[in-house]
Amino acid sequence: MIAEILSTGDEVMLGDLVDTNSAYLCDRLKQLGLVVSQITARGDDIEAVKETVLEISRRAGICLVTGGLGPTSDDITAQACARAAGQPLKMHPQAYETMKKYFHRRGFALTPENEKQAMLPAAADVLINTCGTAPGFFFHLNQCLFFCMPGVPSEMRQMMETQVVPHITKVFSLTPNLHIRRLTVFGLPESRVSALLQEFSDLFPHIRLGFRASFPTIEVKLVFDATGFRPESRKFFDSTIQGEKDLDAEENDPRAYFEKAGRWVLRQLGKKVVSLTGLSLEAEVGLLLKQRNQTLAVAESCTGGLISHLITEVPGSSDYFLLSAVTYANAAKIKVLGVSSETLAAHGAVHETTALEMAQGVRQVSGANWAVSTTGIAGPGGGPTQKKVGTVCIGLAGPGVADAGQYHFTFDDRSRNKKIFAAMALEVLRRKLAEGELKGVKRDIMGEG
Amino acid sequence: MIAEILSTGDEVMLGDLVDTNSAYLCDRLKQLGLVVSQITARGDDIEAVKETVLEISRRAGICLVTGGLGPTSDDITAQACARAAGQPLKMHPQAYETMKKYFHRRGFALTPENEKQAMLPAAADVLINTCGTAPGFFFHLNQCLFFCMPGVPSEMRQMMETQVVPHITKVFSLTPNLHIRRLTVFGLPESRVSALLQEFSDLFPHIRLGFRASFPTIEVKLVFDATGFRPESRKFFDSTIQGEKDLDAEENDPRAYFEKAGRWVLRQLGKKVVSLTGLSLEAEVGLLLKQRNQTLAVAESCTGGLISHLITEVPGSSDYFLLSAVTYANAAKIKVLGVSSETLAAHGAVHETTALEMAQGVRQVSGANWAVSTTGIAGPGGGPTQKKVGTVCIGLAGPGVADAGQYHFTFDDRSRNKKIFAAMALEVLRRKLAEGELKGVKRDIMGEG
Repeated sequence: MIAEILSTGDEVMLGDLVDTNSAYLCDRLKQLGLVVSQITARGDDIEAVKETVLEISRRAGICLVTGGLGPTSDDITAQACARAAGQPLKMHPQAYETMKKYFHRRGFALTPENEKQAMLPAAADVLINTCGTAPGFFFHLNQCLFFCMPGVPSEMRQMMETQVVPHITKVFSLTPNLHIRRLTVFGLPESRVSALLQEFSDLFPHIRLGFRASFPTIEVKLVFDATGFRPESRKFFDSTIQGEKDLDAEENDPRAYFEKAGRWVLRQLGKKVVSLTGLSLEAEVGLLLKQRNQTLAVAESCTGGLISHLITEVPGSSDYFLLSAVTYANAAKIKVLGVSSETLAAHGAVHETTALEMAQGVRQVSGANWAVSTTGIAGPGGGPTQKKVGTVCIGLAGPGVADAGQYHFTFDDRSRNKKIFAAMALEVLRRKLAEGELKGVKRDIMGEG
Repeated sequence: MIAEILSTGDEVMLGDLVDTNSAYLCDRLKQLGLVVSQITARGDDIEAVKETVLEISRRAGICLVTGGLGPTSDDITAQACARAAGQPLKMHPQAYETMKKYFHRRGFALTPENEKQAMLPAAADVLINTCGTAPGFFFHLNQCLFFCMPGVPSEMRQMMETQVVPHITKVFSLTPNLHIRRLTVFGLPESRVSALLQEFSDLFPHIRLGFRASFPTIEVKLVFDATGFRPESRKFFDSTIQGEKDLDAEENDPRAYFEKAGRWVLRQLGKKVVSLTGLSLEAEVGLLLKQRNQTLAVAESCTGGLISHLITEVPGSSDYFLLSAVTYANAAKIKVLGVSSETLAAHGAVHETTALEMAQGVRQVSGANWAVSTTGIAGPGGGPTQKKVGTVCIGLAGPGVADAGQYHFTFDDRSRNKKIFAAMALEVLRRKLAEGELKGVKRDIMGEG
């Protein structure tokens, strides 16, 4: 069945508003086993919306419409749908009474503008709005079932969850059986990740592979709808998957099939996978610290507080995160972290020795088990040294650990450099924390790859 | 001329990604005087995209296409366009060489996957990508000029600004005479901002008013296309604009008309306007510090480094930003900032006295002119005190200034709380820095409103 989405509103067409509703609805329909084939956005123009509704009614089996149900003259969805369906508008008492109650609870009276909101296509059924004024409605046209919902995201979601989803599930007898797996990858451009996984669709034709780049990491997602799964080929058990004993039992077991696919992806990406469960680098680091009952401090220069900000985005981080000293000025590096002025004079701020002293300094001041540091040049200015924009030195101090390395990235953008410096520092720490953890998978520092 | 947008990509249809590109492009075209009539999104399906391209080519005069130019097998825009135009794909040397150079600078060699990216419709012209690998292209089909750009927002925007906009402006002889003004507002929900400016469209019917919420601030934008401007009514000079002496000369002067509108908006929003030029709070603070040749240090607890991160996103911030101490642990507050253990024992970490001692401590350690501090509860956990989630204490220390206040916000979300705490701290500092600056406009701390 073809599913479509129609989003209406001048504010979308004028670029005043980003349409987040469509992504939400696509995701929600996907969970029901329906992949949306087309999204269309139109302005508040009765004829334009009417034409689009007619076109969709000839193509799709279901269409979710958002926006244009408000009280003002530019809210035209009901009129456009009525015209498309060749029906008059009529007052729907259920919609009217619900609105009246909603206003009454808030101590307001209904205005004539609001009454207009209860005027819906004659043959439509009402969708109740429990957290706003605009009633929704649904109706059949040609082969398509249209659901019209408000454009306000919270009202739309409430209506979708409480009324539209149950209705769709029942009418179309949907029984989704969806398996999803996420991996987080750091240290490869998207094109390389894609190249490494090129054979995937041949090996596992029933599983959808998706990538979502959220600089500087990439989420690799496997989505498998196991409804009615019957592997037509045994190709995914062939010799390209090395070191796996193929069990006949796996052949028709969707779960085993899906796990096999996950293992294959993991083997291809190996050491570049920084989370086996799709966590961010900072959440993964947090998990490892919690498991070890250890604590962390950070000394930042070029990352300017971003590492600390990322770490503290994770709920519960106060359990392990003690201190970040964002020492932008050299004087602060000396005074707060105890970096020696000789080191700074001899090597400058952007140097492995400085980075190590920063890490050791913040570890000592905070009493944390682990400390990581950054000092580098995010740009656009070149900073006080002769080093190039994109250079970062990362220091690591911990139980029996005192290490520092220099890395270079080629982005010409301050914000991107901060992000990749921060991720690299978290990754250096994560690798060290995870060392000896993952049996059989040797991992090394990404900077080499 | 009809303008349309086509957005491609499975990640959009699966709801994995919110399409922000279309809003950007709509806004950008609007600035050129073109209102987009339809936005369409399709998945990575050659036939589907081909069909949509054909349909658009019969309706529109210009179409901006994003996505599907990457190296992987699901990047199908070039193929789909070639099929729609009945052209073969051919290697475009200019696209190939630019990509090769891009990789060379980064020390990589081109892969066969990347070579595919230079295969574009035979009759297309190349659009150079200066900050990524995927080349864009443009071509004519029926009555429509198509511009195909990458889906990665930063690459798309760069290509749009440097190549597509100049091309469009030239080809279509667009001579927009556009006046744009941005104001940054903090401390009001969008619905209140909208209500305060409700009369705007009656008073200034020729100027479009837009809002863009970027939590926790709102950008208010006035866009005025003065091409052929002839005010039909004198309504905007009537008595609803108080305290303005209406000059006859202004009547037909678009610039004076636009400035009048700006002043009216400013008067309505008054003290909630934090930047008269659309700058972020952190950029506005940076500007004020630079003007005064003064420096800043920050002591953060609940904001976890976010204030520091925001400040250091501004290029040149190293001129005035010395240190942020993100003292998550109480021990760090004592050791690094010199907060007294008596204060912590008597009042707890979330208290005005603690906040003030943090600000004074970091000011002293860093030697900065100004220091601001935060200590509060971002949630979801309640923290060590009895205070509610959403409570923050902000301390301010500077020349002759030692102040602290407690604020409460009602968001139930860690990330949002961090953002609004950070913005509030920056605003407290900004107000103090700007004090006595703005003649005739009395400003007070937002928390009161």
